[in-house]
Amino acid sequence: MMSDLNDLFLPKSIAVVGASDDISKRSSRPLRFLPKHGFRGEIYPINPKYDYIGGLKCYKTILDVPSEIHTVMVTIPKESVFEILEQCTQKKVKLVIIRAAGFAETGEEGKRKQDKVTEYAIKGGFRVLGPSSLGYVNLHKRITAYFHLAGEMKEFLVGNVGLISQSGGLSGAIFNMAQDLGIGFSYVISTGSEGDIESSELIEFLAEDMNTSVIIGFIEGIKDSRRFIRTANLAIKNKKPIILMKIGRSDSGKKAAASHTGSLTGSDAVFDSVFRQKGIIRVEDLTDLISTASVFSKCKIPRGDRVGIITSSGGTKAIVADKFGELEMNVPDITDETKKEIARLLPEYGSISNPLDITGGLSENTFNKCLNHFVKDDNLDIILVPITLIGSFSKERAMNLIKTSMAEGKPIICLWIGGSLNEDGQKILEKSCVPVFRNAVSCIRAIKNFIGYKIFLEKMENSGSNNLSSHINIERESKEMLRNIGGQSLTEYESKILLSEWGIPITKERIVKSVEEALIAAREIGFPIVLKVMSPQILHKTEANILKVGIKGEQELRKSYDEVIQNARKHNPESEIRGVLIQEMVNGGIETIVGVSQDPQFGPVIMFGLGGIFVEILKDISLRVAPLTRNDAEEMVQEVKGCMLLRGFRGGPAYDVEGIIDVILKTSKFSLEYCDIISEIDMNPLFVFQKGNGVKVVDSRVILKNKI
Amino acid sequence: MMSDLNDLFLPKSIAVVGASDDISKRSSRPLRFLPKHGFRGEIYPINPKYDYIGGLKCYKTILDVPSEIHTVMVTIPKESVFEILEQCTQKKVKLVIIRAAGFAETGEEGKRKQDKVTEYAIKGGFRVLGPSSLGYVNLHKRITAYFHLAGEMKEFLVGNVGLISQSGGLSGAIFNMAQDLGIGFSYVISTGSEGDIESSELIEFLAEDMNTSVIIGFIEGIKDSRRFIRTANLAIKNKKPIILMKIGRSDSGKKAAASHTGSLTGSDAVFDSVFRQKGIIRVEDLTDLISTASVFSKCKIPRGDRVGIITSSGGTKAIVADKFGELEMNVPDITDETKKEIARLLPEYGSISNPLDITGGLSENTFNKCLNHFVKDDNLDIILVPITLIGSFSKERAMNLIKTSMAEGKPIICLWIGGSLNEDGQKILEKSCVPVFRNAVSCIRAIKNFIGYKIFLEKMENSGSNNLSSHINIERESKEMLRNIGGQSLTEYESKILLSEWGIPITKERIVKSVEEALIAAREIGFPIVLKVMSPQILHKTEANILKVGIKGEQELRKSYDEVIQNARKHNPESEIRGVLIQEMVNGGIETIVGVSQDPQFGPVIMFGLGGIFVEILKDISLRVAPLTRNDAEEMVQEVKGCMLLRGFRGGPAYDVEGIIDVILKTSKFSLEYCDIISEIDMNPLFVFQKGNGVKVVDSRVILKNKI
Repeated sequence: MMSDLNDLFLPKSIAVVGASDDISKRSSRPLRFLPKHGFRGEIYPINPKYDYIGGLKCYKTILDVPSEIHTVMVTIPKESVFEILEQCTQKKVKLVIIRAAGFAETGEEGKRKQDKVTEYAIKGGFRVLGPSSLGYVNLHKRITAYFHLAGEMKEFLVGNVGLISQSGGLSGAIFNMAQDLGIGFSYVISTGSEGDIESSELIEFLAEDMNTSVIIGFIEGIKDSRRFIRTANLAIKNKKPIILMKIGRSDSGKKAAASHTGSLTGSDAVFDSVFRQKGIIRVEDLTDLISTASVFSKCKIPRGDRVGIITSSGGTKAIVADKFGELEMNVPDITDETKKEIARLLPEYGSISNPLDITGGLSENTFNKCLNHFVKDDNLDIILVPITLIGSFSKERAMNLIKTSMAEGKPIICLWIGGSLNEDGQKILEKSCVPVFRNAVSCIRAIKNFIGYKIFLEKMENSGSNNLSSHINIERESKEMLRNIGGQSLTEYESKILLSEWGIPITKERIVKSVEEALIAAREIGFPIVLKVMSPQILHKTEANILKVGIKGEQELRKSYDEVIQNARKHNPESEIRGVLIQEMVNGGIETIVGVSQDPQFGPVIMFGLGGIFVEILKDISLRVAPLTRNDAEEMVQEVKGCMLLRGFRGGPAYDVEGIIDVILKTSKFSLEYCDIISEIDMNPLFVFQKGNGVKVVDSRVILKNKI
Repeated sequence: MMSDLNDLFLPKSIAVVGASDDISKRSSRPLRFLPKHGFRGEIYPINPKYDYIGGLKCYKTILDVPSEIHTVMVTIPKESVFEILEQCTQKKVKLVIIRAAGFAETGEEGKRKQDKVTEYAIKGGFRVLGPSSLGYVNLHKRITAYFHLAGEMKEFLVGNVGLISQSGGLSGAIFNMAQDLGIGFSYVISTGSEGDIESSELIEFLAEDMNTSVIIGFIEGIKDSRRFIRTANLAIKNKKPIILMKIGRSDSGKKAAASHTGSLTGSDAVFDSVFRQKGIIRVEDLTDLISTASVFSKCKIPRGDRVGIITSSGGTKAIVADKFGELEMNVPDITDETKKEIARLLPEYGSISNPLDITGGLSENTFNKCLNHFVKDDNLDIILVPITLIGSFSKERAMNLIKTSMAEGKPIICLWIGGSLNEDGQKILEKSCVPVFRNAVSCIRAIKNFIGYKIFLEKMENSGSNNLSSHINIERESKEMLRNIGGQSLTEYESKILLSEWGIPITKERIVKSVEEALIAAREIGFPIVLKVMSPQILHKTEANILKVGIKGEQELRKSYDEVIQNARKHNPESEIRGVLIQEMVNGGIETIVGVSQDPQFGPVIMFGLGGIFVEILKDISLRVAPLTRNDAEEMVQEVKGCMLLRGFRGGPAYDVEGIIDVILKTSKFSLEYCDIISEIDMNPLFVFQKGNGVKVVDSRVILKNKI
């Protein structure tokens, strides 16, 4: 599949169907952009209206072209697209780029049309970029099969960032803005509404591409979500960061995305957890997308998280220190050696520390020496240089930073606050190997993401051993049985039998059909006990008054048994009573919830939270997409605010977090194994006891999928 | 006081002590900047080394100057400052600007020096800006008494924004960056470590200044916090927004601020609540400071919160819609008339709605017509125009936006995403009356702040009638009594008597000294009751086992009474038993907490929260500085997450929020009245019953201040 796309983006001949000679029109652009940016293959304008365009022979249709055509760029109204696809099939082309919009994003009719495009691609043996694609640029190979205005840039900066954008307009805007900041690209690809080639496949491609080391994207929705996860795993393996701006924070955003590229954005919370799980950096703005990319593109991944800050402005130092503190970033002490050296340079300074404010009054030479001592300090992994407006030496400052950064391997990042008066220096730096920011928050967020990625990679390496257990112990028979039931809720009793088969601890319990059986069961389990009527027709046991807790002896049990049966009949005379559950009474634990739901995009999603107001009012839950590693499960527990209660709050006891993690991991494993049968699992509450005493599911419901 | 500063910033003569003829030095700047930017008064360089500087006669000391001197700018090392202050006293100058650093920010010794500066100012009858001040610019009157490089700007843009910055460096950086974005200033003032003139006084001055309509500031800490609040009230009255970037989010930020301008930043949470209370807009970055200022400076306050969005890029529309949705902003439907008009212009479009994406392919003329229909639509108060890269007509687009904005009174704001390829248009717009952003999140945040301020002003107007009750009913005697106790905790019983004097409902209770008294009290109050030993030596009643709840009858009471007394003696044989509290047993409510603490800067701060994990784990509390309006109290209750429980969660009952608001307002009133006597009040829990059934303080502690 990899080599496939490689060939695809390396055409020897390109036809432009609907090419125009009017340079005010988009349809004229590829003819100009291709040769301008160095394409040396054949270019065939296709348009029955012309004989020649810009000195190139123009053909009526692609079938009239005497030689082979690798890529066809189609820039004609959507109504005529299928005729061209037919011709592409005949002509055996490899890639078709469709610019026209009006497909999946316009509703049912449009979706059917888009499906037809996909069918053509499969039958015709070619791949399609689009509909709604503005094409792509392969910068290392100088191929500008691109309808976007960004091709007007005089020269392209070739580099290591691969960009994928579902919005054609933004692909070019990002391209232009990023290049202004000295960021070079390997590929810029506009995918549109993704009738065939889609983002996940392209990220996979870039993750294997030798010229790409940073992958960035503007994404409205992911089509093949499981592939997206595989792709993310590949990027982790190859140590290539993925930075994405993704729409879907709100319903209005989702609606806009759907009507733009026809994207289904799915649950944003699930996306967030997938991103966290896979070390994907999610940014909230294009500015952040570009600035974060600049750090990853221009700097080597740091050795650690220790930041040295050397500034010549007290105000900027205060801003930076404040934000670093807020984000709990590591600004360690510098070595005694560095202190001594700098004290020699700045004899009038009292104490030398990190952050260091050398004030605005020093010579550039002294600044530079101090900077060099910081860069060489073994206690520091990244150097941040905050500057406000400086005098006429702004160019000199920029050059010094560049020189030092080139000489030493350590990342140097500059925050330069000020406008036109320092534009000279800022512009030099922006075009250089030193990432430079004009906004403190963006800068610090980018550094945090940079360090965060380093920590993520380390964690991945260390957790190699406790990876997903691929060996799954399936009870074929119970699975077959469940499949045959189909489309129903299991009762609490049935649900818990299933969980216990999976090795998840549940309360001791028996289902009984008479008072006598109840008494025997209660003696075995031991008083106090809980009593519940099992009836598929009665969902809310408390409301119907068919649940009694804390029954202390036989007499009370007899009385309660009769009561709950009567209550059940009273509540709904039609209700089928499948028995009464006699259950041990659980005490002294903390209530948590573990659940599984099916995300339409990612499949089984595991949920964890503390019970009561934590879930109900505060929505304080964590999510992860199955399969989970042990590390994922640990993070899920740590992530919720209520975790403080589990850890031993205010001198209280610590609870059995290991037990929770075990349940989460087993749930992850079986939710995947049973994902074609089970729709939802709800363990609520899962009681967690004091450390060493494990956990127990007290109530549960499993809902099966409809039979297919 | 107003006219005072007005005169201060309108000098007819300025001396620069330490002036230099070396233009690479800061000390040379005022001599150049003053005439360059239009100062027509006298300028006296003071430096024993020169006879003339730049054609101006140079004097040895200010005492040698034959005429009066209004303002003295001092740019000599800190050691020699006092000598100059001595001379300023003799010379009867009005304002001294001290550039030297090394005062309050350097520790105790420095603080003493700064106090000496303050003393000189008082004795000498002059005012001081600084130490560590770079001076000020009065743009309307063309006075550039300013050491900052920003004076190098060719021309100043005169406008309606007043800037105060404690950081001298940032004052100039903000000035320069803002002017690049077409923002004009009235004043730029660098206050430094504020030995005399401080930010609150200047904000007050700007709130009354006719040329200033927007006040912005970079603040490391507020010195006179009570004045700051008065000042904020004045700004509200005069409808002038205050936009502040304030350090203090983290301890490292506070430390950096202290060592920079010697600022004490106080509790950030209290600042946040003061800002909310007074409608002050807090921003997290200088970029946001400037961009928010640009909207307030260039646009009239909108009539309402309804935003119309008209874009020509699907991707940008998706971004904007997503963020608007996330921030729950109002993007209403447009009128049928607008729909019809636009449908006539765009016949091929299916449905016309808001946001409207007219796509990139339309003529500038059509775009402009659509924009005009949006601007004229009565359903819309603000128009946002998101643009990505457009073709060669970027200048035309910019001009159209400016023209429309000038013709119509409605705010038009532009978000223009793209780089060098559209720089022409962007730059034209940046210099114009149309605020333009290159970052979506900043843009939307600024619009939200803009609308938020409008809503705040409205709320202030509507709540005029239920303002602070100035009439306070003081029990002089009880106050005198408390003052005499001093430095102690009141017992629960004493605390609650005090609260009940203030009209706050408490549980029915009696203090008794014998079983017999206890029985009588219990009969009066009615069983079940609660029993607590009152002893100043035993703080934790539960631990000491001297608290019994739910006592149902006389027999149980006799037994429990003896037990708790014995337990108290066992727990601490030394403990003085002041009696036993017989208290009604409260049931069926929700536990909340109301408290008062003393902020070192703002005085009494009122706290509200729900009991249990809401406060203890989630820190889910709201704060306001006394005095509170009814509206403040309402917001305090609404602000906490747990408020959902009070409102009737999941079909449960609604609780008596009115009762809480009443307690909060009374607490605010008395906390101010008693602020010299009472240090802390803790009502925990304050039980809230179902709507109409009021509230009751169940336990409380009042801590008195030490006697002075």
